[in-house]
Amino acid sequence: MQTREVLEQLVEGKISIEEAEKFFKKEPIENMGFARLDLHREVRSGFPEVIFCQNKPDEFLIEIFKKLVEKDKRALGTRASEHQAELILSELPNAQYDKVSRILKVDPMDRELKGNVCVCSAGTADLFVAEEAAQTAEYFGAGVTRVYDVGVSGLHRLLAEVDTIRKATCVIAVAGMEGALASVIGGLVENPVIAVPTSVGYGANMKGLSALLTMINSCANGIAVVNIDNGYGAGYMAAQINRLAVRGYE
Amino acid sequence: MQTREVLEQLVEGKISIEEAEKFFKKEPIENMGFARLDLHREVRSGFPEVIFCQNKPDEFLIEIFKKLVEKDKRALGTRASEHQAELILSELPNAQYDKVSRILKVDPMDRELKGNVCVCSAGTADLFVAEEAAQTAEYFGAGVTRVYDVGVSGLHRLLAEVDTIRKATCVIAVAGMEGALASVIGGLVENPVIAVPTSVGYGANMKGLSALLTMINSCANGIAVVNIDNGYGAGYMAAQINRLAVRGYE
Amino acid sequence: MQTREVLEQLVEGKISIEEAEKFFKKEPIENMGFARLDLHREVRSGFPEVIFCQNKPDEFLIEIFKKLVEKDKRALGTRASEHQAELILSELPNAQYDKVSRILKVDPMDRELKGNVCVCSAGTADLFVAEEAAQTAEYFGAGVTRVYDVGVSGLHRLLAEVDTIRKATCVIAVAGMEGALASVIGGLVENPVIAVPTSVGYGANMKGLSALLTMINSCANGIAVVNIDNGYGAGYMAAQINRLAVRGYE
Amino acid sequence: MQTREVLEQLVEGKISIEEAEKFFKKEPIENMGFARLDLHREVRSGFPEVIFCQNKPDEFLIEIFKKLVEKDKRALGTRASEHQAELILSELPNAQYDKVSRILKVDPMDRELKGNVCVCSAGTADLFVAEEAAQTAEYFGAGVTRVYDVGVSGLHRLLAEVDTIRKATCVIAVAGMEGALASVIGGLVENPVIAVPTSVGYGANMKGLSALLTMINSCANGIAVVNIDNGYGAGYMAAQINRLAVRGYE
Amino acid sequence: MQTREVLEQLVEGKISIEEAEKFFKKEPIENMGFARLDLHREVRSGFPEVIFCQNKPDEFLIEIFKKLVEKDKRALGTRASEHQAELILSELPNAQYDKVSRILKVDPMDRELKGNVCVCSAGTADLFVAEEAAQTAEYFGAGVTRVYDVGVSGLHRLLAEVDTIRKATCVIAVAGMEGALASVIGGLVENPVIAVPTSVGYGANMKGLSALLTMINSCANGIAVVNIDNGYGAGYMAAQINRLAVRGYE
Amino acid sequence: MQTREVLEQLVEGKISIEEAEKFFKKEPIENMGFARLDLHREVRSGFPEVIFCQNKPDEFLIEIFKKLVEKDKRALGTRASEHQAELILSELPNAQYDKVSRILKVDPMDRELKGNVCVCSAGTADLFVAEEAAQTAEYFGAGVTRVYDVGVSGLHRLLAEVDTIRKATCVIAVAGMEGALASVIGGLVENPVIAVPTSVGYGANMKGLSALLTMINSCANGIAVVNIDNGYGAGYMAAQINRLAVRGYE
Amino acid sequence: MQTREVLEQLVEGKISIEEAEKFFKKEPIENMGFARLDLHREVRSGFPEVIFCQNKPDEFLIEIFKKLVEKDKRALGTRASEHQAELILSELPNAQYDKVSRILKVDPMDRELKGNVCVCSAGTADLFVAEEAAQTAEYFGAGVTRVYDVGVSGLHRLLAEVDTIRKATCVIAVAGMEGALASVIGGLVENPVIAVPTSVGYGANMKGLSALLTMINSCANGIAVVNIDNGYGAGYMAAQINRLAVRGYE
Amino acid sequence: MQTREVLEQLVEGKISIEEAEKFFKKEPIENMGFARLDLHREVRSGFPEVIFCQNKPDEFLIEIFKKLVEKDKRALGTRASEHQAELILSELPNAQYDKVSRILKVDPMDRELKGNVCVCSAGTADLFVAEEAAQTAEYFGAGVTRVYDVGVSGLHRLLAEVDTIRKATCVIAVAGMEGALASVIGGLVENPVIAVPTSVGYGANMKGLSALLTMINSCANGIAVVNIDNGYGAGYMAAQINRLAVRGYE
Repeated sequence: MQTREVLEQLVEGKISIEEAEKFFKKEPIENMGFARLDLHREVRSGFPEVIFCQNKPDEFLIEIFKKLVEKDKRALGTRASEHQAELILSELPNAQYDKVSRILKVDPMDRELKGNVCVCSAGTADLFVAEEAAQTAEYFGAGVTRVYDVGVSGLHRLLAEVDTIRKATCVIAVAGMEGALASVIGGLVENPVIAVPTSVGYGANMKGLSALLTMINSCANGIAVVNIDNGYGAGYMAAQINRLAVRGYE
Repeated sequence: MQTREVLEQLVEGKISIEEAEKFFKKEPIENMGFARLDLHREVRSGFPEVIFCQNKPDEFLIEIFKKLVEKDKRALGTRASEHQAELILSELPNAQYDKVSRILKVDPMDRELKGNVCVCSAGTADLFVAEEAAQTAEYFGAGVTRVYDVGVSGLHRLLAEVDTIRKATCVIAVAGMEGALASVIGGLVENPVIAVPTSVGYGANMKGLSALLTMINSCANGIAVVNIDNGYGAGYMAAQINRLAVRGYE
Repeated sequence: MQTREVLEQLVEGKISIEEAEKFFKKEPIENMGFARLDLHREVRSGFPEVIFCQNKPDEFLIEIFKKLVEKDKRALGTRASEHQAELILSELPNAQYDKVSRILKVDPMDRELKGNVCVCSAGTADLFVAEEAAQTAEYFGAGVTRVYDVGVSGLHRLLAEVDTIRKATCVIAVAGMEGALASVIGGLVENPVIAVPTSVGYGANMKGLSALLTMINSCANGIAVVNIDNGYGAGYMAAQINRLAVRGYE
Repeated sequence: MQTREVLEQLVEGKISIEEAEKFFKKEPIENMGFARLDLHREVRSGFPEVIFCQNKPDEFLIEIFKKLVEKDKRALGTRASEHQAELILSELPNAQYDKVSRILKVDPMDRELKGNVCVCSAGTADLFVAEEAAQTAEYFGAGVTRVYDVGVSGLHRLLAEVDTIRKATCVIAVAGMEGALASVIGGLVENPVIAVPTSVGYGANMKGLSALLTMINSCANGIAVVNIDNGYGAGYMAAQINRLAVRGYE
Repeated sequence: MQTREVLEQLVEGKISIEEAEKFFKKEPIENMGFARLDLHREVRSGFPEVIFCQNKPDEFLIEIFKKLVEKDKRALGTRASEHQAELILSELPNAQYDKVSRILKVDPMDRELKGNVCVCSAGTADLFVAEEAAQTAEYFGAGVTRVYDVGVSGLHRLLAEVDTIRKATCVIAVAGMEGALASVIGGLVENPVIAVPTSVGYGANMKGLSALLTMINSCANGIAVVNIDNGYGAGYMAAQINRLAVRGYE
Repeated sequence: MQTREVLEQLVEGKISIEEAEKFFKKEPIENMGFARLDLHREVRSGFPEVIFCQNKPDEFLIEIFKKLVEKDKRALGTRASEHQAELILSELPNAQYDKVSRILKVDPMDRELKGNVCVCSAGTADLFVAEEAAQTAEYFGAGVTRVYDVGVSGLHRLLAEVDTIRKATCVIAVAGMEGALASVIGGLVENPVIAVPTSVGYGANMKGLSALLTMINSCANGIAVVNIDNGYGAGYMAAQINRLAVRGYE
Repeated sequence: MQTREVLEQLVEGKISIEEAEKFFKKEPIENMGFARLDLHREVRSGFPEVIFCQNKPDEFLIEIFKKLVEKDKRALGTRASEHQAELILSELPNAQYDKVSRILKVDPMDRELKGNVCVCSAGTADLFVAEEAAQTAEYFGAGVTRVYDVGVSGLHRLLAEVDTIRKATCVIAVAGMEGALASVIGGLVENPVIAVPTSVGYGANMKGLSALLTMINSCANGIAVVNIDNGYGAGYMAAQINRLAVRGYE
Repeated sequence: MQTREVLEQLVEGKISIEEAEKFFKKEPIENMGFARLDLHREVRSGFPEVIFCQNKPDEFLIEIFKKLVEKDKRALGTRASEHQAELILSELPNAQYDKVSRILKVDPMDRELKGNVCVCSAGTADLFVAEEAAQTAEYFGAGVTRVYDVGVSGLHRLLAEVDTIRKATCVIAVAGMEGALASVIGGLVENPVIAVPTSVGYGANMKGLSALLTMINSCANGIAVVNIDNGYGAGYMAAQINRLAVRGYE
């Protein structure tokens, strides 16, 4: 329905002022002064807003956690420090904190996880990113399979799990150092691979830039890349892809 | 069925040597001397092998085009020069060449395009990449909607097309210069966005590196990035995602 | 009046030695040993000298604050630590310190703020830079409008404020991560935009270099860029531009 | 007037459907298929759209030049090749082409140039950028003063022109190699300086990146930077600033 | 024998002046004016001097080829152009030129190739480097096995050749784009791997720097890296390692 | 023996199911949950697995040290902190810790060191890397000669040791700052040189990147490079090369 | 004598207006429109102005050559193309052109060369830079010794010339690839070394940046660096240093 | 005298074995195990060895300070921490420590400082480098003039000191941020300028790399550059140049 039609129907009394207003109304924003909470994000994206905790002042963190929990019954915080976890746990006792992934969340887990996202990681040092990705995907409703410590320097470890990996709607490949894992997996599966470079390594890895370049230049098909250590971003996109597979297209 | 079982059943005569052989057999490769054709890729990935034409010697290009057409009735070549187009057209008269995307293909188009991938581009100079993405996605079976010249410096052009873009299973955002288009679209849609930086620009864009960094650092959710000018890679992954939506998950 | 004329007039007694001396005299500098205070900067630029506090030894900071306050009745210090704030407050009790912007100043605020500089920021984490810009512009006499947390990933937040932003003589766009805010604003307003990349982000943002590159490569017109986190520089230049609008040109 | 009011007035018959429609109507765009002409840009920014000629196909260039001239009686093309100049001159005989700046324009020059933008360049090799800046500022209505070949290695050349430079509402400092000119001018004037790094130089200047870094890190106040060789961008912003000075602020 | 001893024996008549002179004599160098031919390199390194043909003026190339052939009966030139090949072939009719590797040599092949160096390449586009490596190793006496087009995006091609690769005393892994081949091979063999990044790729591969970084950051053991496209350097070092295996250690 | 043959012989009773199983069996992996121990690495590479201690959680470190010692009677840990050393020493009293190299190991030293690897370092600040290389090579069975503090700025120190260096089967050249040592040694010896850039230096050495580039671009033959500060990697590869020399080739 | 004194003496008639004028007079500049010739440079620096020919338009080059020759009887042009050489030779028949260094000059050579600058180069490919340095130093009056092709990969070539090199007042070390020559020479001589990185090399040398970094990070004392391929700059500074040695200090 | 002659004279009894031995003898080195003290450096370079204190273990620092003081009566240590200062002061009570430059030395100052090196610095934050340069030059015998806080953003401060600066045999220009000071000074003096970039600045200055690039690309003549913050290196080379001026050339 276009502008003209709406206005004509309004004049003709076919629709009320409230209905017309709704058509033109911009999406509501809650302006908290220091921030503008995007409360309709779930309408727009199908996923609720998430809190990037790093460097957020204490008062703000508490306020925003409370507001989201009040509205949605749940809230996901990423990159939360132990101090922030204690803070939120004292305010919201049903919150949970995971040291490895640094995820801080309130999640009644009252929904069924559907589909199958597979999170693969190259080394044990990459776990903090892999778990952020896995738990994010779960928060957004995806079933997750974890296949960890399958870096390419001991290829048989990866080959032993190929059948498991091939079953996923979307694979997340997490790797630091030279980041070759994404290319190898890309050549073995039929569904999309989201590559996450990690800052794990030393010397010329330049805090993950080297792994990022490896993944961007991959010779394999079906690979796209997110920022260094961005497990959250990979989990989010994997959940989107998995949702498409679960929901189908109409 | 595991190794032990297969061997036991063989000894017990429950399966034939041929059946056991098939279990252990590696996937066949056609070794052409200069190259090893991956003829079973379609089995593994669901998509046939594609030819990266750039810098391929004439004789090799002809041989590989013929072999793929013979096997699959179709073949897709990317980054083909006009010289290569003439070469293949003289050998395979039903081939087609598109100067903008530099795609050279044999494609009877005997299949229905399904789903909906939306390819957005920022400027007219990005068309060569956008069309490579669009035609690749079509080759792999996806329906494609094109929304071109909607760069963020004239935002109303993009906003006028938001409803169209939101309908896609997957959006490809193609942009050079500062590459901000991906972030803006990422905030407007619910399905995944594949960002393609292009080498369009000058000065400090460093042949596309600047746009690549912009996209990798995007503050929006649901964005992953492929290599500079890699329209093919974006089209491939979009087709994978779109296929998941069309096929569903079982 | 040229050298020759001055000398001739001097010899002819048309001007005094003092007048001739004034013609040739270099601008005075106060050499404090460790530094040369540029006391005539206000004459040259119309704005008084400002103190970059970071890493200044305590004794020097006190001495220079006192000298400037004595001369001008006011003084602006940027990037002041809490330690430095305590130090100056104990010496100059009418000084003020703002933790967010790290601005330490003595300012009787005995002047009218004129014109309208609009400071926009992408995220809450960019506030420390945005406030440095806003308070600097105010110190140099500009009226300031603040529009914070309007990053492009939730475009409706920005669009809801477009009319406000368009009213400014100069817009300061502060953004980290991918820094796309500047391009989007650049396409919406008619007056100049000063873009400030911030070091906010992680991974491939390389402490703000990525946002800097985005802004330098902007496809929008009317944008120029200052150094990463340089809120002061943006506020200074915005005050210059705003002063031109207020004063006019004769 | 807000959404609700418009609708109420419409229902109450205080305004017509056409008037209400106008309120909600998006800005018009001319979709030429390959491009979306932003015909209302002049309304939004006060300056007409400009054509970036580089790599534009011949047919498109002709069509867009004609359309703009038809609408505005004038048109500005930047980075035009000699081939493109011949093309447009044969279609629009009153067009003009300048080899140095590569500016191709139709401009009856039927307006008064107002205010004073000063374009300074470091070396003779930087002229192609300086002239692009100067002619762009003139196209957008600014008076321009040119002060060329005043690089810092022979400082007296610059010092001899300080009075001239200080008179401008805005200074454009164009320099390649180490780009120190901008800092030196920044310390001498009271109005804003737009710094343009050029790709002139060799070795470690990395095609202008070195000069860009110099300018971004300038220790002087009142300097902001545009992309390497972006004379157009500097001229545009200088014209905006100069317009503010000429028009004043109300 | 030390300095003192030599002198004492000389004085005592136990050795002649010629013998003492030989002890102190510096290694001879043939100063050709434009160059100093290192004729004793073979004594020092066990391998004769090689000619890097690229950009050598014609006269010099001819002179140096002749001098080496005269002395050693053979000569190896790398990175020779077709023009240079014609030049040398007209002077030395028994010379040979290979277009792919750009190796131009005079080699009677009157020696037995010993040991086994395995040269692996990722794609057909990497052949020019792989062949330079292979032919260099052969020139220096090593037997060579070629395993080409075994990039990691189709892993089964590589796995099918693992037994062959494991037999080598030294493996050369040649790969462009993301360069993951070296890491995968490194995890599969017991002998050293020399990794050669190639400039093959586009976009963010930055002419081979990305592959170089991948290889330097490899998570696998037993890998060291040479310069981009430096097939010669890899072949030289592989020949050294292979020679150690063949000769043994005493 | 190929798949078919194995199966035929099994059916014919020539081999047992166990023997056939062994043929097809994948190499065993011990999945410890958080990690997959590669217990057959020694079979594959001839060298046992090594523990990269940095950032490993305490419990994991203890468990993996114990498991390796139990299996092999020895274990090598690199980049161990003093805290980790105390931890392991309290569990495994026969462990040893070296502060300089940060190597933590259990090593009964019940084997003969063979051959001769020479480790050269440029400055005293490079010792931590040089010792990691030397002790790694010894752990893997190589005899080691240390030649330290022979940087090129005092060339006579290096020249005095040339005869010693020439005797090695493989030379490791460790250098920070400008890293020129590798090139100079490369021109003096006949066996391979493994170059290790170190992070020692300041300013434009960019934490070792400058030394890495120097070594990668070396004009000398027979040099390959490992990652910055990667003494372990150099020691490993030197031990491989030395083993070839000791064992010979059959 | 200070401003006041001059004015007083003028009024008192102790000095004439001309003498006072001379005191205040700025240094003269010849404004040629497109350029400002710095005719008094010789007074200021002791060396006449030099022409950087690269990309200078023909007419300008001719005009400036003529003006300098007219004034000084000689002129030095650097980076001149063969076309430019022909141009100037047809106008100024006593001009000379050297293809290797691309130096185009008019030089009657009517002065004695004094002192001793030693120019060393690593390889034959670096000659074009070495000769530019050598001929520049000669143009500015220095005696020059050339020691070419003494790169560090064949150290004995350099060691054989150490006595010659030690005699110079200043050494210029020209090297591409890894640029280690400067460090080695720096450790062998007592006078200053000016290091010139060249763009000679390939792959990770990044057109000379690698050699530049090597030289900047040199562990040897007494080394400073000029831009890549900047033989002119090195020759100029060497001539300054040599002049100090010849003239002495008073 | 050449090898042959020496041997002949020995045999003929014209010289003794000791005299012949001295001819062939390499320069002595004191091998302290962890380091090789270069005791003859003073013979070779005319300047004694200097101690780079940073990261040197306590025992080593003490031992080397003592050894040098014992030999030379004086010793210079650079980049010494306060802890190291206390350490050495307790062992060598006549040592002196300067916090700003971090120079720790024993220096009876029993020599006359000759000539005139001028050290200029741009800002007060650059003092730590400027003082390291100044004190180093003094240690090696040069008279030093200090001209601090003369950055180009307030040009009149520098111009007021031009006559002072012009008197030096060599100027050291120390600057951070954009580093433009070197170019401006280079154009004003006739003797060589050694440019020292400092790490002072923020954002895109990348810890001094930006200033380094500015200085390397300088458009002025007679400038060469040392590493970031390398005041020592600049002071050393300035002392060499100044010594040439003082000593003259014979």
